[in-house]
Amino acid sequence: MRVAVLGVGLIGGSIGLAARARLGVEVSGYDPDPGVLDRALTQGAIDRAAADVASAVTDADVVFAAAPVGALPETVAAALAGAPPDCVVSDVGSTKRPLADRAADERFVGGHPLAGAETAGVEHAREDLFDGAIWYLTPTPGTSGVLYERLHRFCKRLGAQPVAIDAELHDRLMATVSHLPHVLANVLAGQGAGVLAGGEMIPAIGPSFRDATRVAGANSDIWTDIYLSNRDVLVQTLDETIDRLGAARDEIAAGDRGAIVRWNDRARVDRDALLGAGLAGGNLHELRASVPNRPGVIADIALALGRSGVNIVDMALSPSADNRQGVIALWVRGDEQAERAERLIVDLRFPVARA
Amino acid sequence: MRVAVLGVGLIGGSIGLAARARLGVEVSGYDPDPGVLDRALTQGAIDRAAADVASAVTDADVVFAAAPVGALPETVAAALAGAPPDCVVSDVGSTKRPLADRAADERFVGGHPLAGAETAGVEHAREDLFDGAIWYLTPTPGTSGVLYERLHRFCKRLGAQPVAIDAELHDRLMATVSHLPHVLANVLAGQGAGVLAGGEMIPAIGPSFRDATRVAGANSDIWTDIYLSNRDVLVQTLDETIDRLGAARDEIAAGDRGAIVRWNDRARVDRDALLGAGLAGGNLHELRASVPNRPGVIADIALALGRSGVNIVDMALSPSADNRQGVIALWVRGDEQAERAERLIVDLRFPVARA
Repeated sequence: MRVAVLGVGLIGGSIGLAARARLGVEVSGYDPDPGVLDRALTQGAIDRAAADVASAVTDADVVFAAAPVGALPETVAAALAGAPPDCVVSDVGSTKRPLADRAADERFVGGHPLAGAETAGVEHAREDLFDGAIWYLTPTPGTSGVLYERLHRFCKRLGAQPVAIDAELHDRLMATVSHLPHVLANVLAGQGAGVLAGGEMIPAIGPSFRDATRVAGANSDIWTDIYLSNRDVLVQTLDETIDRLGAARDEIAAGDRGAIVRWNDRARVDRDALLGAGLAGGNLHELRASVPNRPGVIADIALALGRSGVNIVDMALSPSADNRQGVIALWVRGDEQAERAERLIVDLRFPVARA
Repeated sequence: MRVAVLGVGLIGGSIGLAARARLGVEVSGYDPDPGVLDRALTQGAIDRAAADVASAVTDADVVFAAAPVGALPETVAAALAGAPPDCVVSDVGSTKRPLADRAADERFVGGHPLAGAETAGVEHAREDLFDGAIWYLTPTPGTSGVLYERLHRFCKRLGAQPVAIDAELHDRLMATVSHLPHVLANVLAGQGAGVLAGGEMIPAIGPSFRDATRVAGANSDIWTDIYLSNRDVLVQTLDETIDRLGAARDEIAAGDRGAIVRWNDRARVDRDALLGAGLAGGNLHELRASVPNRPGVIADIALALGRSGVNIVDMALSPSADNRQGVIALWVRGDEQAERAERLIVDLRFPVARA
């Protein structure tokens, strides 16, 4: 198998290192910065330095566009233009709708590994960067099932946990659980500094303030790209935050003890529910579903399971001899998740059995 | 020396344990809950269980009111009514303006140790709870210098770092660096839970969200008290946050790259400045100032130094023979802080020397 990595910074470099070390595949790399490309070669993140996107992807089976968010659309377009017909092309951008139009091509599947997004530079690349990390994949009804399965298995073998998610939901989720906390951290840091106005110094900063401002002023290039690429959803999310904060402000101003207690209790329940979500344990179950060999089937199943919080630990596709039917095998952890997955696949009207 | 602790929960119990173990003083305790009072006695947090506030404070040199914030005004009033004329009375509440009117009595000095504010219960009390912790003290011009010095030394010997601060600034500071992050954590937890509406489950929550919601739904009894006791300042603080958040929202919506980069860079500078504030190191310097023996002198010096970020590591008062003049010795860490302290005392027109 051959892999191409377009942009060999932290993420691209780590994909290269892990692919070479763990999968023993050949990795070609391209980067617009010749110095970075050289370093990736020296560090063993790639086998071959390509002169441009086209020559990097020409004989690839899997392509990862790992450029900054702002440069992804053109990088992915160039990759799709140059890659072979049976090659899967993915990206690692932290917002997924901007590339959703590429999904007209059945070879494209958006992706977003939740790992090391911030420290730039191939010099920080590590083979184990993705170990245990969630790697979101955004298949659509047009996605080739065979190519999706290849990408899923590849991410899995890099050490990650691939999870299918709708691109729209992904961006809404990231706006709330990642972009919003960054904006709030910036706002809070500015407001804290305002208290210092007039030369006052603060002998001690509370731990809650430290926690809440930890990501204040994160890498400006990366985060400006992220804010802008998810701009519309982030602005909606901020409007909601302003409304919620105004409601909290009014409740505190009104001084109704019982209402404040209920609001505070509710926040505890909400956080527990959020942090409990997706924590799955237990035995590994294998589910085997018979599916027609047509576009969108794998995406339908992966998205249905992803939406209801079932983690697909591993998956494998076996086409039937006549190539009109196939079996998809899914591994899921925990009795409860296995039962849920089975019900969901039945709901999609595919025969399924627990192996 | 005799100490009285009114309210023997986590903070009161820890004061008792540390005072007995480290200062070898006798501690009397009172608590409205007889079961809690019994446990404090059994655990060795107090030597003697008093039947009421008056009998707890009757022969005390130092009194700490460690009741919940809502019960502090009446507890402090009862303590001042029953305590001897040369006894210093303090409290440990997390907001300081509600008790500012008690400062008409020269024996009262508000206090707030930044330690273990949340876990309630004497069963969690520890002798070392205050080790290295900031202990804010809010002297006023009416505060007795001798009594302030006694309290400062006492807190120091409990293991803490006493820092003088104006009550108004204290509450503004706490609203921003502690109460506001708690409100934001609650709001963020609620909004995150909203993304789950419709049965969606979130496979992974970003670390920035985890950090920013860590204190969501903190102990409702304690935090409702805190929000309400600092209500006016907190509401102003929230109004400012809503304004700042609206400005950030508008900037992101406008999509001006340069403006977003500048805003983000500014947040990094702000946070670094905030977390760098109050970090002092270096050699210990002794400053000796000659001061008239009149009310307010110690408070003036302590507040001036506190305001400009000078930590008084230790202090000692030596009255002159005729009791009309005195020398206050201050220990300050670091050359820069010592020079600043010296200048500030000179500005107050007291003769001062570096010993």
